[in-house]
Amino acid sequence: MNFELTILGTGSATPVLTRNNTAHYLLIKHKGYLIDCGEGTQFELLRNKIGASWIKYIFITHLHGDHYFGLIGLISTMTMHRRTEDLYIFGPKGLSEILTLQFQHSGTWLNFKIHFVETETEKHYLLFENEDVTVHTIPLVHRVPCCGFLFKEKSRKRNIIKELKPQDITVEQIKALKNSEDLVNEDGTILYSFEKYTTPAPNIISYAFCSDTKFHEPIIDIIRGVDYLYHEATFLHELLPRATQTNHSTAKQAGEIAKAAQVGQLIIGHFSSRYKDVSPLLEEAQTVFPNTILAEDGLVLKFTNLVNEPVLE
Amino acid sequence: MNFELTILGTGSATPVLTRNNTAHYLLIKHKGYLIDCGEGTQFELLRNKIGASWIKYIFITHLHGDHYFGLIGLISTMTMHRRTEDLYIFGPKGLSEILTLQFQHSGTWLNFKIHFVETETEKHYLLFENEDVTVHTIPLVHRVPCCGFLFKEKSRKRNIIKELKPQDITVEQIKALKNSEDLVNEDGTILYSFEKYTTPAPNIISYAFCSDTKFHEPIIDIIRGVDYLYHEATFLHELLPRATQTNHSTAKQAGEIAKAAQVGQLIIGHFSSRYKDVSPLLEEAQTVFPNTILAEDGLVLKFTNLVNEPVLE
Repeated sequence: MNFELTILGTGSATPVLTRNNTAHYLLIKHKGYLIDCGEGTQFELLRNKIGASWIKYIFITHLHGDHYFGLIGLISTMTMHRRTEDLYIFGPKGLSEILTLQFQHSGTWLNFKIHFVETETEKHYLLFENEDVTVHTIPLVHRVPCCGFLFKEKSRKRNIIKELKPQDITVEQIKALKNSEDLVNEDGTILYSFEKYTTPAPNIISYAFCSDTKFHEPIIDIIRGVDYLYHEATFLHELLPRATQTNHSTAKQAGEIAKAAQVGQLIIGHFSSRYKDVSPLLEEAQTVFPNTILAEDGLVLKFTNLVNEPVLE
Repeated sequence: MNFELTILGTGSATPVLTRNNTAHYLLIKHKGYLIDCGEGTQFELLRNKIGASWIKYIFITHLHGDHYFGLIGLISTMTMHRRTEDLYIFGPKGLSEILTLQFQHSGTWLNFKIHFVETETEKHYLLFENEDVTVHTIPLVHRVPCCGFLFKEKSRKRNIIKELKPQDITVEQIKALKNSEDLVNEDGTILYSFEKYTTPAPNIISYAFCSDTKFHEPIIDIIRGVDYLYHEATFLHELLPRATQTNHSTAKQAGEIAKAAQVGQLIIGHFSSRYKDVSPLLEEAQTVFPNTILAEDGLVLKFTNLVNEPVLE
């Protein structure tokens, strides 16, 4: 069991030396998921000792440069590292064409297959699932087509209690018990009751990534009860007109979304370059939603279940 | 009079944290010229306190990512900074299409005009000139179309001697003297002789940028007698087969080019990520051409005239 987030960049469009462009790396049960990939992300992966080869899935919210200009470089590096494993890229219309044109002009022949999946950014739907997680889109409102992503672990298995030794039971029997099935003898009597020999499955963990967007209440129903919500907070609320004009959110608005959606913890980021000190943004969000933290470049968060209620679809 | 180089990146294709991707910033008489623009160049400009707005001309050698992936981000930033001044971009076929496609999908409307000039990479010709410099192409041999650039100051003017005071002479007369013209009285007698009232023009400075290329002797005639030669030296000569296979040069080969071309100083760079310590590359080049230095990220070189012979065309 693990669900770990590494924040690689917390800046917004105008580059500053103190904050990198947006990229979040999720490690869920030994598989790597990258959300957004601003310019320089591959260097931040290096800096954070995350192998490019660990990334199996890449999710791009929208085609503004601070969210995807690093993707072509990352893929080129994967090629140079002789990657052979398939790569899945989810992103808006245009992304595949942009990458393909550049491979063509650089004479790049990929050693691995890229599966491009075009996101329907205006629709909330199940975009992807594997044995570990589901990923739903979260329609956002920005200057270009944009959607966030809701990562949700699949139901976990029950845990076998320590008293039951491996020599007493087969692998198949363990699986059955973990799936809440009793093991019965040939005569139908119970050999091992799952209730006796397992403990309840831990609650699942969920993470919603929402950047970039103007204040948009329809996302509340989608992200209700998530354990962790990353929501952009580009501006202080005193700059609400600027936020509205540029289709971004204020820290207060991020707090309001988190409060209304009853999330476990709010992480704010995508700070305007005008804020050298971002603590006022934190304070503003906390006035509405106290359990808010600041995204920081290089911050690693080991996620745990915070909200016991199951996440609503 | 100034001609100054800032080296922004010295790495090769595989990213390392100790060396950035290729980009050289030239400041020639208060105008900025950028040669190549690998991923992250805009951050290196910030780090070296070079304003993106100072760049008037951008020269891209070829379409491998470590030489141009940073260009789209730099231009996007220029737009965000509300640039209005025209920008000139010189590069191989495909560059304009790659940039335009990305502007389109990001909904970017430039506030300034970009003049794209497609380079004929296989031909040595005058690509560009303004009042200060000429820039010729240097055909290189690489895996994709690639050319280097030869920057050469235009002939300098003679300098007026201090004894001649501004009140004695008009601006037009000063220009004439600096252009080696005598000032004559109405009766044809000499008022001021240019030889008496001016000192000879200083020698011009020239800089040749050659990356990426395999060892390619035809460039020698083009770069003969330049004051400064930047030549790639991706590998030590013990890896000559690898250099040949990948169309790169060894440090020894870079030295041989510099020696044959009788340049003033050789600067080597574009080091393979395998070399943590690049001093053996320097030593190797110096065995052939002693006046060699290592390119270093952030190194600033104030160029002076080193080779008194005029540069041959």
